[in-house]
Amino acid sequence: MIDCGEGTQLQMRYSRQGFARLGHIFISHLHGDHCFGLIGLISTLGMLGRGHAATLHIHAFPELETLLRPQIDFFCKDMEYEVEFHPFAPDTSEVIYEDRSLTVTTIPLCHRVPSSGFLFREKPSARHIRREMIDFYHIPVSQINCIKNGADFELSDGSIVPNDWLTTDPSPSRSYAYCCDTAPRTEIIPLIEGVDVLYHDATFQADDLVRAKKTFHSTSVGAATIAAQAGVKRLILGHFSARYDDEKKLLEEARSIFPATELATEGLSIQI
Amino acid sequence: MIDCGEGTQLQMRYSRQGFARLGHIFISHLHGDHCFGLIGLISTLGMLGRGHAATLHIHAFPELETLLRPQIDFFCKDMEYEVEFHPFAPDTSEVIYEDRSLTVTTIPLCHRVPSSGFLFREKPSARHIRREMIDFYHIPVSQINCIKNGADFELSDGSIVPNDWLTTDPSPSRSYAYCCDTAPRTEIIPLIEGVDVLYHDATFQADDLVRAKKTFHSTSVGAATIAAQAGVKRLILGHFSARYDDEKKLLEEARSIFPATELATEGLSIQI
Repeated sequence: MIDCGEGTQLQMRYSRQGFARLGHIFISHLHGDHCFGLIGLISTLGMLGRGHAATLHIHAFPELETLLRPQIDFFCKDMEYEVEFHPFAPDTSEVIYEDRSLTVTTIPLCHRVPSSGFLFREKPSARHIRREMIDFYHIPVSQINCIKNGADFELSDGSIVPNDWLTTDPSPSRSYAYCCDTAPRTEIIPLIEGVDVLYHDATFQADDLVRAKKTFHSTSVGAATIAAQAGVKRLILGHFSARYDDEKKLLEEARSIFPATELATEGLSIQI
Repeated sequence: MIDCGEGTQLQMRYSRQGFARLGHIFISHLHGDHCFGLIGLISTLGMLGRGHAATLHIHAFPELETLLRPQIDFFCKDMEYEVEFHPFAPDTSEVIYEDRSLTVTTIPLCHRVPSSGFLFREKPSARHIRREMIDFYHIPVSQINCIKNGADFELSDGSIVPNDWLTTDPSPSRSYAYCCDTAPRTEIIPLIEGVDVLYHDATFQADDLVRAKKTFHSTSVGAATIAAQAGVKRLILGHFSARYDDEKKLLEEARSIFPATELATEGLSIQI
């Protein structure tokens, strides 16, 4: 989960997201609309009986633990599971999470307070086996993993079957960059270059540029320009100011620069 | 406002309650579903531009300030108005708020953690003037307030017009008792005797009495018995367990003992 404003647990229920699968929460910055829902969610997970094996990991700037730990200690005394904080620095890009299939890297942003984006990048997956070739050469099961990882195969007569006769290219690795609450910042472009989906702050319309600069947010045009310069595949605009009745104009403005743009409407679900 | 669970500010928007009129919040006890919405509400009031003249008063057990003050200091630095905490003790009934027309008195309850109800009682209002009698005796405007407060009137010939010729009885003072998160507790009866409306914990059906006792909550029957013994005018049941698909059975059980019972459904508005 990325960010956790007030009412997040309710939104999870509405959208039928399971609570049990939640293992890591990444908090972009310490404004209330991005973290006031944590204590309620943590408390509810405890009451739902989350067990001691299921530590909840929160990745955030160091101040969050100082602010939240006393509340957890007071309100969640009887909770079985642990909440573990993983602090990271706001000013350098670093890998803050890694598992077998994924890395999460911070993207330093530019806001009124320290703010960080997150890049989720799948690790390259294994090559696809061509089943008919494996059968043809009678390749034993024990060799399959090596071949998936790129190895050639040696026949009993010493001749070599090259890997690309036996496999096809792996599925491309997917990537998602989340850059909320920021002014447009060209320094992020090398980090997010070519990502499948970029979520970017687009709080204001183009004609509210002065307000955007003052509050360290982006306009539709600012977001779309970053997307175009970074050559991302799709752009999702979000964090709209409440001053607009609808966000149609934001969308049009962004699409004039970067056509593959969508609005992050409530409950939107995207397949990457 | 009484209690402030997560999402309260959103519910206020849905129900079109003005934020500006909110001056005092009474917190019954320190469980998340009764106070996790405070920090978000406090923060939003600040962003809506609540001015320095409009201190927000929070009446709660002393621990709440310890828990909340660091968050207010961190998240609401630029806020113009003050948040003032008024701590009260959980074990004795005391008047914790008083103004020209109202007193608020705590009602010590019986829960897993210290818990308090609140009795809102209007002060007796002035007697109603009988306009035609005032005109008949040519009583000057300067005397009206004294007469509203019960004074007789002396005519120029020295004879006395008794007050009850000049006035009728005042409107009866209204009263509301809120007793949430408690096992049934006969000690509260003298405090809530005859109130216009009693809101009472009715978390469980009568057949879940064991569970009610274990969790220091009340059943429908427990709540209705308190209402009947205290001779209140109306009973509102609330704080229903999520285990029931609907609360019809709770209502029937309570009405069999105390007919003037209603369910506190979401968004319910009651005229006292």
